[in-house]
Amino acid sequence: MDYYKLSRKELKAELAKEQLRYDKYKEMGLKLDMTRGKPCAEQLELSVPMLDVATLGDFKAENGMDCRNYGLVAGLPEAREFMGSLLGVKGENVICGGNSSLNMMYDTVCTFMLHGVSEKPEDTPWFECKDRKFICPVPGYDRHFAITEQLGFKLIPVDIDENGPDVDAIEKIVADDPSVKGMWSVPKYSNPTGYVYSDESIKRLAHMKCAAGDFRIFWDDAYTVHFLKDEPAAQLNLYEECVKAGNPDRAIIFGSTSKITFPGAGISALAASVSTVEFLLSRISKQTIGPDKLNQLRHVRFLKDKAGVVEHMKKHAAIIKPKFSAVNEVFEREFGDCDDRVLSWTRPEGGYFISCRTAEGMAVKVLSLCKECGVAFTPAGSTHPYKIDPTDSYVRIAPTLPTVDQIKLAVEIFSVCVKIVLINKLIAK
Amino acid sequence: MDYYKLSRKELKAELAKEQLRYDKYKEMGLKLDMTRGKPCAEQLELSVPMLDVATLGDFKAENGMDCRNYGLVAGLPEAREFMGSLLGVKGENVICGGNSSLNMMYDTVCTFMLHGVSEKPEDTPWFECKDRKFICPVPGYDRHFAITEQLGFKLIPVDIDENGPDVDAIEKIVADDPSVKGMWSVPKYSNPTGYVYSDESIKRLAHMKCAAGDFRIFWDDAYTVHFLKDEPAAQLNLYEECVKAGNPDRAIIFGSTSKITFPGAGISALAASVSTVEFLLSRISKQTIGPDKLNQLRHVRFLKDKAGVVEHMKKHAAIIKPKFSAVNEVFEREFGDCDDRVLSWTRPEGGYFISCRTAEGMAVKVLSLCKECGVAFTPAGSTHPYKIDPTDSYVRIAPTLPTVDQIKLAVEIFSVCVKIVLINKLIAK
Repeated sequence: MDYYKLSRKELKAELAKEQLRYDKYKEMGLKLDMTRGKPCAEQLELSVPMLDVATLGDFKAENGMDCRNYGLVAGLPEAREFMGSLLGVKGENVICGGNSSLNMMYDTVCTFMLHGVSEKPEDTPWFECKDRKFICPVPGYDRHFAITEQLGFKLIPVDIDENGPDVDAIEKIVADDPSVKGMWSVPKYSNPTGYVYSDESIKRLAHMKCAAGDFRIFWDDAYTVHFLKDEPAAQLNLYEECVKAGNPDRAIIFGSTSKITFPGAGISALAASVSTVEFLLSRISKQTIGPDKLNQLRHVRFLKDKAGVVEHMKKHAAIIKPKFSAVNEVFEREFGDCDDRVLSWTRPEGGYFISCRTAEGMAVKVLSLCKECGVAFTPAGSTHPYKIDPTDSYVRIAPTLPTVDQIKLAVEIFSVCVKIVLINKLIAK
Repeated sequence: MDYYKLSRKELKAELAKEQLRYDKYKEMGLKLDMTRGKPCAEQLELSVPMLDVATLGDFKAENGMDCRNYGLVAGLPEAREFMGSLLGVKGENVICGGNSSLNMMYDTVCTFMLHGVSEKPEDTPWFECKDRKFICPVPGYDRHFAITEQLGFKLIPVDIDENGPDVDAIEKIVADDPSVKGMWSVPKYSNPTGYVYSDESIKRLAHMKCAAGDFRIFWDDAYTVHFLKDEPAAQLNLYEECVKAGNPDRAIIFGSTSKITFPGAGISALAASVSTVEFLLSRISKQTIGPDKLNQLRHVRFLKDKAGVVEHMKKHAAIIKPKFSAVNEVFEREFGDCDDRVLSWTRPEGGYFISCRTAEGMAVKVLSLCKECGVAFTPAGSTHPYKIDPTDSYVRIAPTLPTVDQIKLAVEIFSVCVKIVLINKLIAK
């Protein structure tokens, strides 16, 4: 159905049809929550064996240390190696932390705010840069943007497509302005698009000339092993490319097992040049005596190595792939014969989200109609700095938590709402 | 033996005797570590049953939430109540955090540095106060002092005795200088003296007039239930006293289960006025999606409530009390008949340390002699800001980790070294 080519009369007929569908859904008195990128209960069950005390054995690390006691501010050596293998670096490049990589990102920005990015005198604290700025690929992850917003950065949106963020635009932004201090990125199966940054984009980000010597790329490799197809997508390693480019300190890579084992009870890691790791540890060693080494030990003993993680992630994929497929199937059925302007959506091969795009100026209205029908989506705008999407068109769909049937229902209702809002808009023209 | 009354000849005879003892110890080729306030293996065993998956039951919180998934930035409601019961406040006054209360202290100071202590316009960020200062009771805890040192505070030492810090001195320091932003304190079984702040001191700290409206007391109630006698010492609650005094936001109380269950794998908490809790949560909600709720659930299920904790702490006391007694016995034997100037030491009824004091200008030399004999103590000066004890007399003894026999040996060697350094000093006069 190509709504853009219909007559006013035909549009009205279509509207009546969709309104009828809507009213039927509304009568069902639904309460569906599609807002959060949370694993479902079946996924959580996969890692329950990790929680048994037997997993911890004699509580001893490979170096003989009793993991129940104090120590090791950079994390358990085998946990650093393990997280390094997932993030593509050596253990010496890793700080293995607590239960939240977001926490490590926040703390790293705070450290740079209060102390600068290194001990070098030219690396002054970021708070001294009054008009500090941070680049935010959009659509992107609201929690990233919120950190730099709260810490007083001006957020600069940059568009993202199948190849990653618009590097042409980024190169221009960083070239002359020393107050552009960094950028956020989710390089693989990006939140919310599922896009995988191309090797070409990664090389250019590693090489680009930055007016700020302390420009840093916050590389949130949250979904690095979260594939839906046969294996994780291959991708150049940003840290290696930065080393080759002579900018070894530019990359700060983050990851966690939050969606491998348990959200909130996983382990996190930060990877960077050894000198950045040492600088950060000089701060972290004042902040804490060490992370939860028992939880790190649990993880290493249960998941073993990268191969073990990939096997484990296949079980996750088996559970959530049908959910992603359900979204795509409904959209194909509802919009397969429509102009792309009506609704476009991504078809991720990993990660936790599908991003879709309505015609401009419709997202808020569509989600409000959905809500009246008992279906909650992540609020429109969440994917953009300051929670404002100037195009009012992006909607993030999080299909992992609900059941396949719930997803189908929710996405059908969403589809009907898109049609109703669009047709009304076309009629009003 | 009163060395101060001996003749030169008698001193030389004593020196020869002690030197003989020293040489004999040295021949033993010892390697004893008395540096760290770590629980011993036997203590760690007490909480191993907590680590079994059965402790977690169906992973559900009382509110039905699956603790394996995301959420609850302030912590599990029952964990907030539980930690509140230990710290003497309601659950609504508590943020239950990760594995380290030191981390919560560091983050709180960072928040005040970057944002001030509240949203009120007069509460400007502490980094804007160029000559910011922090009060440090001495002898005290090096990791407290290190946080404020790293964040650019001038550290002001204030003496501490059996009743707590010298409140006369503190009242004068805070009365006129708005750049004095706070003070550290370990109010019960203080590190390293074991002193318990008196109720009178607590009342005065709550009531005192501060030039800085944003003056905050960082009240590290680390050892609140860590008694060696029959039950925890009774003590007024600082938060309640601050409320009565009309300064409800002045108290920020910290605690953890690090030395109740596992150092590094315990849970931590911060307690403060509801408005401070809300302000801090507005920051923490950008820092993390939530703490490790599985570990919080484990703790609540295993320890149950304050009565459960007190029972559990009796088992700890049974293990470590003989170690504290061993230190005291050796000191009584070695110095019982000496002038107090030779060596004085504290006799704590809880906590993790004994503080002792040599004559002035001796601590560094004594510990260096100990080291040559294979016995390591916490470096002299650690108990003071900038790691400099201007009297060079305080030594911290940490008796929990070694065995009773090791402790006796280490303390005997320490005693001999004290005598050798003192006698040499008296002879040189």
